Amino acid sequence: MSDPIALVVVDAQRAFRLWEAAGKRRNNPDALDRIADLLALFRRTGQPIFHIRHENRSPGSSFHPDAEGYVVEEAAHEQGDEPVIVKGVNSSFIGTDLEARLRAAGIRRVAICGATTNHCVETTTRMAGNLGFDAVLVEDACWCFDLDGPDGRRHSAEDVQAMTLANLSGEFADIATAETMRVQLGSAD
Amino acid sequence: MSDPIALVVVDAQRAFRLWEAAGKRRNNPDALDRIADLLALFRRTGQPIFHIRHENRSPGSSFHPDAEGYVVEEAAHEQGDEPVIVKGVNSSFIGTDLEARLRAAGIRRVAICGATTNHCVETTTRMAGNLGFDAVLVEDACWCFDLDGPDGRRHSAEDVQAMTLANLSGEFADIATAETMRVQLGSAD
Repeated sequence: MSDPIALVVVDAQRAFRLWEAAGKRRNNPDALDRIADLLALFRRTGQPIFHIRHENRSPGSSFHPDAEGYVVEEAAHEQGDEPVIVKGVNSSFIGTDLEARLRAAGIRRVAICGATTNHCVETTTRMAGNLGFDAVLVEDACWCFDLDGPDGRRHSAEDVQAMTLANLSGEFADIATAETMRVQLGSAD
Repeated sequence: MSDPIALVVVDAQRAFRLWEAAGKRRNNPDALDRIADLLALFRRTGQPIFHIRHENRSPGSSFHPDAEGYVVEEAAHEQGDEPVIVKGVNSSFIGTDLEARLRAAGIRRVAICGATTNHCVETTTRMAGNLGFDAVLVEDACWCFDLDGPDGRRHSAEDVQAMTLANLSGEFADIATAETMRVQLGSAD
């Protein structure tokens, strides 16, 4: 059997849909479909899957466990005994047992997707690379929002995403798409 | 005495000067002067300083300990018993005792500067924030280089730096300048 690769799905929760409904502009409108494709691919090929959820217990947070935003998107719901790991900061590796679980399972490769590209996904990917995992960012299965800099300059979601890819590529991770992952995992379907 | 704040100077080594001499284009040409200002300020006000060095033992690396690029820039040289911490990846918190040293000393606030803004400085700052430190990025005491994305698009060093600040601001860190740090630390000089 070839070296296993784990899919890490970061924060595919309804909060971002609510932000969008409230007027925030995002990129990659089909990203949840690509996450669904990846989940189907990893299930079909028997590769491990880790679902990450963001939780923030501050009153009024979109990610409060009692809030609608905390609920996982239907397309990204866990199945069977797939592990769900709850985090409280951007990195999926801080305050969680994700690293310990990956090492215990002998997993050295991770494919990362979810939201938002530049915050939780990018921080998780930087740490994955620096912790010694072979990391892949699946670019069309991630999304982010327009972002205002401290200088007042507005960066489009597309530019934000492009810079995340430029910063990560070759330094922390390889960049893939859901389709190149399908080819890489050799799935006939 | 007010809550101490530590200065973390990341990778102020000659490698980047060599990259520049080889034709790479950077921003913030005065960043080393601002690092020197910060070092003088933190020494004058008796605040802790941590010097981070990047080491890469791969043959031919700019950061090989026997290479000229490994040498710290004169403006950023440690003095007396200021600690020097050697790292092998982007984050100053991975594979080092920086977090343990900060916690042992009761330090909850860190001001981060050095190079490059989007790689080692940004990764260190993201982790500092996620580990629960109050992090400040000193923007004029950091620099970076033009960067090509995996799509072939070239991002100017100024755009790379602007996106780092936009990504970090409010989410992982506050943004400061060497001058606002001087005012904040109440130094008369």
